[in-house]
Amino acid sequence: MRSFGSDNNSGASSEVLAALAAANVDHAIGYGDDPWTARTRELFAEEFGPGAEAFLVLNGTGANVLALSLAAGPATCVLCGEGAHIDVDETGAPEAAGIKVLPLESRRGKVLPEALREALGAIGTVHSAQPSCLSISQPTELGAVYAKAEIEELARIAHEAGILVHMDGARIANAAVALGLPFRAFTVDAGVDLLSFGGTKNGILFGEALLVFRPELAKRAPYLRKARLQLASKMRFIAAQYEAYLRGGLWRRNAEAANAAAARLAGLARGIPGVELVGEVETNALFARLDPAAAERLRAEYFFYDWEGGLVRWMTSFDTTEADIQGFAAALARALARGPAEARA
Amino acid sequence: MRSFGSDNNSGASSEVLAALAAANVDHAIGYGDDPWTARTRELFAEEFGPGAEAFLVLNGTGANVLALSLAAGPATCVLCGEGAHIDVDETGAPEAAGIKVLPLESRRGKVLPEALREALGAIGTVHSAQPSCLSISQPTELGAVYAKAEIEELARIAHEAGILVHMDGARIANAAVALGLPFRAFTVDAGVDLLSFGGTKNGILFGEALLVFRPELAKRAPYLRKARLQLASKMRFIAAQYEAYLRGGLWRRNAEAANAAAARLAGLARGIPGVELVGEVETNALFARLDPAAAERLRAEYFFYDWEGGLVRWMTSFDTTEADIQGFAAALARALARGPAEARA
Amino acid sequence: MRSFGSDNNSGASSEVLAALAAANVDHAIGYGDDPWTARTRELFAEEFGPGAEAFLVLNGTGANVLALSLAAGPATCVLCGEGAHIDVDETGAPEAAGIKVLPLESRRGKVLPEALREALGAIGTVHSAQPSCLSISQPTELGAVYAKAEIEELARIAHEAGILVHMDGARIANAAVALGLPFRAFTVDAGVDLLSFGGTKNGILFGEALLVFRPELAKRAPYLRKARLQLASKMRFIAAQYEAYLRGGLWRRNAEAANAAAARLAGLARGIPGVELVGEVETNALFARLDPAAAERLRAEYFFYDWEGGLVRWMTSFDTTEADIQGFAAALARALARGPAEARA
Amino acid sequence: MRSFGSDNNSGASSEVLAALAAANVDHAIGYGDDPWTARTRELFAEEFGPGAEAFLVLNGTGANVLALSLAAGPATCVLCGEGAHIDVDETGAPEAAGIKVLPLESRRGKVLPEALREALGAIGTVHSAQPSCLSISQPTELGAVYAKAEIEELARIAHEAGILVHMDGARIANAAVALGLPFRAFTVDAGVDLLSFGGTKNGILFGEALLVFRPELAKRAPYLRKARLQLASKMRFIAAQYEAYLRGGLWRRNAEAANAAAARLAGLARGIPGVELVGEVETNALFARLDPAAAERLRAEYFFYDWEGGLVRWMTSFDTTEADIQGFAAALARALARGPAEARA
Repeated sequence: MRSFGSDNNSGASSEVLAALAAANVDHAIGYGDDPWTARTRELFAEEFGPGAEAFLVLNGTGANVLALSLAAGPATCVLCGEGAHIDVDETGAPEAAGIKVLPLESRRGKVLPEALREALGAIGTVHSAQPSCLSISQPTELGAVYAKAEIEELARIAHEAGILVHMDGARIANAAVALGLPFRAFTVDAGVDLLSFGGTKNGILFGEALLVFRPELAKRAPYLRKARLQLASKMRFIAAQYEAYLRGGLWRRNAEAANAAAARLAGLARGIPGVELVGEVETNALFARLDPAAAERLRAEYFFYDWEGGLVRWMTSFDTTEADIQGFAAALARALARGPAEARA
Repeated sequence: MRSFGSDNNSGASSEVLAALAAANVDHAIGYGDDPWTARTRELFAEEFGPGAEAFLVLNGTGANVLALSLAAGPATCVLCGEGAHIDVDETGAPEAAGIKVLPLESRRGKVLPEALREALGAIGTVHSAQPSCLSISQPTELGAVYAKAEIEELARIAHEAGILVHMDGARIANAAVALGLPFRAFTVDAGVDLLSFGGTKNGILFGEALLVFRPELAKRAPYLRKARLQLASKMRFIAAQYEAYLRGGLWRRNAEAANAAAARLAGLARGIPGVELVGEVETNALFARLDPAAAERLRAEYFFYDWEGGLVRWMTSFDTTEADIQGFAAALARALARGPAEARA
Repeated sequence: MRSFGSDNNSGASSEVLAALAAANVDHAIGYGDDPWTARTRELFAEEFGPGAEAFLVLNGTGANVLALSLAAGPATCVLCGEGAHIDVDETGAPEAAGIKVLPLESRRGKVLPEALREALGAIGTVHSAQPSCLSISQPTELGAVYAKAEIEELARIAHEAGILVHMDGARIANAAVALGLPFRAFTVDAGVDLLSFGGTKNGILFGEALLVFRPELAKRAPYLRKARLQLASKMRFIAAQYEAYLRGGLWRRNAEAANAAAARLAGLARGIPGVELVGEVETNALFARLDPAAAERLRAEYFFYDWEGGLVRWMTSFDTTEADIQGFAAALARALARGPAEARA
Repeated sequence: MRSFGSDNNSGASSEVLAALAAANVDHAIGYGDDPWTARTRELFAEEFGPGAEAFLVLNGTGANVLALSLAAGPATCVLCGEGAHIDVDETGAPEAAGIKVLPLESRRGKVLPEALREALGAIGTVHSAQPSCLSISQPTELGAVYAKAEIEELARIAHEAGILVHMDGARIANAAVALGLPFRAFTVDAGVDLLSFGGTKNGILFGEALLVFRPELAKRAPYLRKARLQLASKMRFIAAQYEAYLRGGLWRRNAEAANAAAARLAGLARGIPGVELVGEVETNALFARLDPAAAERLRAEYFFYDWEGGLVRWMTSFDTTEADIQGFAAALARALARGPAEARA
């Protein structure tokens, strides 16, 4: 099977699998007190600066809810973009942890500074959940990438109001490649306090990381990680993967491949009559509008998701091949060759 | 490093690693809609009967809290044994999910039927958290194994009072081997409604399963699994492991090896003056009382945990070798060769 | 002080105070096992039908969160109107209880049936919080009153999808008077399952009631009422008030007075140049648009709240007098007599 | 009806009712922004010192859970005495708010310093809920009163470990009278950080207060009070009661009367063969052991509760009269006049 449904439909990079296999030697203390985890934490600190503390966790929802649990609690709320994963795609996991999520007016998922300012006006009103954290997705769920300066502006507004900044970086490598910047430039250096650092969508088998850039939050994180069901028993097997991922730039090569595949597919799709790409293709996601009947015909050959606003989403992965792209574009052309009227017949 | 600290200090069985590597082909839909997961669910249904639904999850705390979230909620409580993992070893994860945990009088972690009956007397009292579930650990955290009849009795009392029965089976394979029974005989057939089925301590890399034996609970489980942060993105990589684990009896071979290693070590330890083994060695855990100074000397060579009541715990794993056992016994003998007084000097 | 800020700025009806004083005799068992509570529950059952169970609680937020706790939980969400009190005016109390709240497109706070239908499309999607309850406010926070048929339609849609219907009736007496219907006609008989029955805004000193129209929910309510911090110790003092409120139609006389006062004020306000009333005045709330400088001048004389969309809200109470209305209208005229330009100078 | 069941079976002091009636004039802004609340907060500050902030709340469970919500959260636990109301008598309300409660070894409900020290040993262990607060009941649920020095010692141990101290003072006036000390001497001056200040059991109609002695906690309290369902709409009616209660020493006169009544009843009871009083009668509660058949005969005349350990509890109130005491003692004597054997017949 070859899929354009999501980058999590791919498997793992061979380097990642090899590292995991290599870690399967001997005994090691559980719960992170092992050499692989120590080395990986060190690698994260090299990437994000000496004040950065990395906490390996089990999945992306877990990373996000752990981050929000550090930043929010009863009587507060977390501000986010429209369509943010934490608001619409996690089955109420934040609220199940007691955290109110409040979406703000956004453009392609990017929070508008004026919307943030307005929401912060609730601070001090006893009947309003008190904003305690801004959560932004980089890239957004609609594939848009915040420029460094945009993050800096939002973080400045947030910090001036005394609230924290969390970044959902489920696809952060794709954003870093799109920006041509090292991770830290548009995260900790731009004012981000908590970062859900994703790898599973970019060649990791399982496991993500929460990066904490404030010592007072980092101090509470180990306990909350366990209470939020995110403490791995045999942590070395997550750590070993991230060691392979961070060392030698595997993350970058993978994300470059995925982004390039998306750009290539976009180029082909634009040449097919009846396909309307919506929004710039900045990372590895394409959003398109096409006749529903054509979408159905295409789905018979390839798995992909419908999206809000009558769109469909196609995603490429680190392992998407030129043959995959050609195959998908051809199927797309075939699906659109028959007109809408014919399809309904 | 060779450890007697915990069975999670071991790695994975080679069959498990091979299965995981073999699953790293092609694309597969995420979140469980893949062939590996389908096959593994089928294997679980063979093991536990056609009404059993298996939900793969990320770790043991997650399996437990998901189970309890299905069985309990505000104004209720979960009854468990003294020293139950859910009460004392999960950093308040159940309570962080809004679930009160109430330990009952127990013997070596096994809930006493009369204590259960007394606790059920709170049903109907408006000021008391209403018991909604009994949670038992098989084996218990002190290594004791419930007989089938003991489980049946507790389940009968629970069900007559209208509450559910959950089993924390973090080491269920070790219990099955100790009992010489198939899983279902002392779980679903004995009245268990929800089972945290552990594999990580017995040769799995990562991931556990929640078995649900009631359709009305199974219906809600997929949503709660996500809300409780336990939905794996690339689920095939957990499923493939459990496929290898269940097919061909790997789970049994591993647990037999671990239990046999513990029995062998117990035999040696009983011959060493100054070691007092506490409680029968029924599975792969030994609890011992020994001079603290000797324990400290031993710890310089081997990692292990102190336990409540002034005990130490030693655990064997599926991969504990005869050399490991000999080495540990020799170190133990050395540690005890010097007297307590000398040690304090 | 005379206020048009909120109907909770008024005190209690003399009949209510007298009943409370009369209940201050002798001893009575706490927590509701007293004759006053028994009589009041009976009165509620007369009002709402024999299947209705009334649970006295401590405040409106408590009634709402208790209702939602009966209807929702982790992995679910409660659908409501835009600007619903439970979403924007309770400091995140539902989410602090683990309940996600999802506002739907509305008109003057009334949920649009098509918006409800669309939201129910999330049922069955594992990544979406599962709708478990529709919560509507009667009247809405913008003073609109649902017609009986509108409630019936929403309830039918909700029930067909298998979800419950909650009504936030903080001002339900004002709605009943506006509709000219008995309570039950537009609540239980129209498909409502849970009703927050408010009295504090209509002449009660303190305490509200939760009406539960389904036995399986009523069974759990006593325990949840305590766990949600809503069980009154000396309950007779709430019960006695509601006995006076329900018997002899005090609730109706009070609401009629408040609604009539609002209509009278609306009539006067419409005659004052520069006042634009927004939306029909159906109950005891007026929403107006006026020059901010004039609003500020008016506020120097009378307390009232700003509302969303650049509006101000004025509310009348059961005890608003003709003199109050004349005084307010005169102050309003004075405030508007000076032009905006002058005011800014 | 005259009851020895609980001090909440009594009504309100006439001064309290009069103050409430007197507050029923004119309009007042809701939610505490009224003159009565301002004056009452001032009175509390006089009683407890200028740094004390009083937050009026709706009931005792609410005061406790609000306090614990300020002091604890996920991954933490609250330590308390055995049989503490927050652990056994609030239907899991703390846990429903995500707070784990851990009872410590106690004597008549008073936490033993060595048990506290041992529990604090869990600090720093990642698998253990981290103690964040010690909660003590003054008097305890078994009627014992902590001496000032005992509170100071516990608070010193708690503070040295970096955790907060909460006092559940549901009957704090009875303790103050028993100690012959002003409130502040054995609360804020002894190291208490958060105090649930009860009045309902001592002549108040409804409403309690949470006293917060640390500014950083007081800052968050107004929002949490609303989120925990404890913000009164017409707060002046709670405030007016506490104004009457605090001014002129009504609280002391009431508690003196209740304590004296208990002492008087204890004196009579000790003279009745077959009654064994258990523990010193320090406040207004008596715990007795008597033949179950006799207890049943007594219950036919008077309402009272069974207690743990096969005891019964009798409580006096501020309004217990000499005639009440004589009547109860006579009934008790009658109930015991027939022997156990006869009763069973």
